Amino acid sequence: MKNIRKVAILGSTGSIGSQGLDVIAELPELEVCALAAGNNWKLLSEQIRLHRPGIAAISSDPPGEMNLPDGVNLLVGESAMVEMVSACDADVVLSGVMGTAGLQAALAAIESRADLAIANKETIVAAGEIIIPAAREAGIHLLPVDSEHSAIFQCLAGSDASQVRKVTITSSGGSLRDFDDEEAENASITDVLNHPTWSMGQKITVDSATLINKSLEVIEANMLFGLSPEQIDVVIHPESIVHAMVEFCDGSVIAMLGEPDMKTPIAYALAYPNRPVRQTACLDLASTGKLTFARPAGRELNAINLAYRVIEMGKLAGAVFNAANEAAVQGFLKKKISFGMIVPIVERILNQTPSTSEVNIEAIIDADRWARQQVQDEIDKIL
Amino acid sequence: MKNIRKVAILGSTGSIGSQGLDVIAELPELEVCALAAGNNWKLLSEQIRLHRPGIAAISSDPPGEMNLPDGVNLLVGESAMVEMVSACDADVVLSGVMGTAGLQAALAAIESRADLAIANKETIVAAGEIIIPAAREAGIHLLPVDSEHSAIFQCLAGSDASQVRKVTITSSGGSLRDFDDEEAENASITDVLNHPTWSMGQKITVDSATLINKSLEVIEANMLFGLSPEQIDVVIHPESIVHAMVEFCDGSVIAMLGEPDMKTPIAYALAYPNRPVRQTACLDLASTGKLTFARPAGRELNAINLAYRVIEMGKLAGAVFNAANEAAVQGFLKKKISFGMIVPIVERILNQTPSTSEVNIEAIIDADRWARQQVQDEIDKIL
Repeated sequence: MKNIRKVAILGSTGSIGSQGLDVIAELPELEVCALAAGNNWKLLSEQIRLHRPGIAAISSDPPGEMNLPDGVNLLVGESAMVEMVSACDADVVLSGVMGTAGLQAALAAIESRADLAIANKETIVAAGEIIIPAAREAGIHLLPVDSEHSAIFQCLAGSDASQVRKVTITSSGGSLRDFDDEEAENASITDVLNHPTWSMGQKITVDSATLINKSLEVIEANMLFGLSPEQIDVVIHPESIVHAMVEFCDGSVIAMLGEPDMKTPIAYALAYPNRPVRQTACLDLASTGKLTFARPAGRELNAINLAYRVIEMGKLAGAVFNAANEAAVQGFLKKKISFGMIVPIVERILNQTPSTSEVNIEAIIDADRWARQQVQDEIDKIL
Repeated sequence: MKNIRKVAILGSTGSIGSQGLDVIAELPELEVCALAAGNNWKLLSEQIRLHRPGIAAISSDPPGEMNLPDGVNLLVGESAMVEMVSACDADVVLSGVMGTAGLQAALAAIESRADLAIANKETIVAAGEIIIPAAREAGIHLLPVDSEHSAIFQCLAGSDASQVRKVTITSSGGSLRDFDDEEAENASITDVLNHPTWSMGQKITVDSATLINKSLEVIEANMLFGLSPEQIDVVIHPESIVHAMVEFCDGSVIAMLGEPDMKTPIAYALAYPNRPVRQTACLDLASTGKLTFARPAGRELNAINLAYRVIEMGKLAGAVFNAANEAAVQGFLKKKISFGMIVPIVERILNQTPSTSEVNIEAIIDADRWARQQVQDEIDKIL
C-alpha cells in the first residue's frame, strides 16, 4: 500500500484551496491534516466538517458559532495560520495565500520540514531570495503549482539549469487577446475577468489580461530553477495546451501539455514524487486540430519586459513589482483606475524601488508596504 | 573531464551510419572504435582514413586495394561484422543494418555488454522477442534512435509503462500526404521518394509513404517499452515537430519536439546517459506559427492497423510483416509492382504467417526468407 501523504492547505476557501480539496477527495493516497482560511468562516466550517482535519486556522474572528465537529483544534487570529503550519505535521503544505501572511506561513512550512507546494507565485517573486535558500537548506521539495512551472519541473525531470538552453513559458494572451492595444486601455472589468481558457481567481485573471502574470512567471522561473533571464522566453499560445517547453543543450525540446485545468499541477505537487492516477479526459490533439504560437508584441511585450527589468534590478525589485501590481489591480477592480493604467503605474513604482543593503523579511515587508502606498498616492492624485 | 565513449558503427556508409560519423566528429566525448559496411568499400575506406578505427569490417570482398592506414584490422566476409562487434570493445554500438546481418550483429553487441543504439526498427519488429530479453539480461541500455522512440524514451525519463496511459507517435503523412487514396495507388517512384520533412534512406522513405513505417514504429513501441496496443496511438502531424507524446496516469502529457533531424536522436543515444552539447538552431514555434494534427484515415489507417494485427498475432508475425514489406518495397523500387500494391501484398502474406512452437533466431530467419519468397511469387504471378 502507498503511504498516505498528509496535506495542509493554506487558503482553503480560495480557488487553489478548494481545487486542492477536490483533488484530495479524489486520491486515496492524500488526506487533509490542516486547513487555514482568511475570513470565509462559513465555507471553512463546511470544509472542516467534510474533511475532518485535526487542526484549522482562521485569521479573523468568526462572527458566529462555527459548529465544528469534536476533535478539531481551531486557532483564531492573525498568527493562527503560522501556528497551525508549525503544529500540523504535514508532509506537504499547499499554499495559495498571498502577501505577508503567505510568506510567513511558507517559511513556517519549510521550517517544519514539510514539502511546500506553492501556488502563490507572488511569494516567490517577492521573497524568492529568502524562500529558495531556506528550502534548499531544509532539504525539502519546493513544488511549483503554477501550471507553467509545474510543466517546467516535469520537463526538467531532474536535469539542472546547466543542461538547459532555453525555457519557454506559454501565455494564452489573456481575456483581452483579441483587443488591440487601444481597445485594451479602457477594457471593462467584465471583459477583463472573462478568461478564455483558464478558470481562476480574480486577481490572476486581471494579471493574465495585463500579461503581468507572465512577468511574474518569468521571475518565478528565474528564482525556482536558477535560470538566467536569457534562458527564459515567452510565447503567446491561445489554446493553452502547451504549458511550457524546455530546450536542452542537444537541441531536444521537452514540452508539457494538457487541457487547462489547475487540478493537474495541484495533484502532481501533492502526490509528488509519485504520479497520481486520476480520471481525466485524454488529450486529443487530432480533435483540437491545431496549436498556434506567436511572439508577444505591443502592450504584451511591455508588460513581459518588466520581468527582465526586475531580475536585473534584483534585491527588493520583486517585492515592489509584486506589491505595486497587487495594489494597482485592486484599484482597477474597485474602479479607481482604468485597465490601461495598471502597467504604467507598476512600471513607475518599480523604477523607484528603494535600495537596501540586505534583503530580509523586514525589508521585503517594508518594500511591499511602501509600494502599495505609492499606488494609493498615484490613485489619490488621479481621483 | 568526461569519459570518452567508444562507438562502433554498423552500416557506416548508410544514412544513419554517415550521420552517426558526423555526430561523433562534432562531439569530443565520442570516438569511433569500429566501422562496418556492406559493400561500399570506397566510402568505407575514406571513413577509415578519416576516423581511424582500430578495426573495420566489410561483408563483400573489395574489388581493389582499399589503401588503409597502418594499424587498422580489416575483417572481410559475411561474418566479419559480427566478429568485429565481438572484438572491438565498444561502449555503444550504433546499428543501422537491417535483415539477418543486423540481427546477428545486434545480438553480438548485447553479448559484448555494449549499449545498443538501434536505428533499424526492422530488427526490433522481427526479433524483439529475442533482443529485448537478451538486452535486459545483459544489463545493457537499448537506446532507440528512431526519432519517435527516442522521443518516447526521453518523455518517459525513467517512468515505466505502468504510469503511462497512452503514447502518441506522430506521422508526417509521408511524401504522398496530399495525394488522395486513388492518386496514391499509382504514385511514381519520384513522388514517393520526395519526403516533405525528413531526409532518409530510400526504403524508409517508401515506408513513410505507405505509412508502414508507422506500423513498424507502433510494433517497436510495443516491444521496446512494454506498451500494450491500446496504449499506442498514431496522429498525423505534417510539420514533424512533435515526435511523440506520453500521456501519464495523472493526465499530464510530456512531448518531445525538435526540427526533423536524425542527428539529434543519434547524438542523444551515443552520448547517453549524458546530454551532449550541440550547436543546433533553437526551435522557434512563434516562427513556425502553428502545429497541426489529424487522425489517420483511409489508406493511412489501413496500413497503421496492420501493426495492431501483428501485435495480436505475436510470434513470427513481426518477422513476416517486416520481410514481406522489405521485399514489396524492393519490388516497387524495381518497378515490378505499383505503389498501391505494397500494403495489400504485405497484408496477404501477414495473414498466412506460419505458426511455430518457439520463436528463436532460426525460426525468425526462416520466416523472413519464407515471406520474401511469397512476395517474389506474388510478383511473378503479376508479371
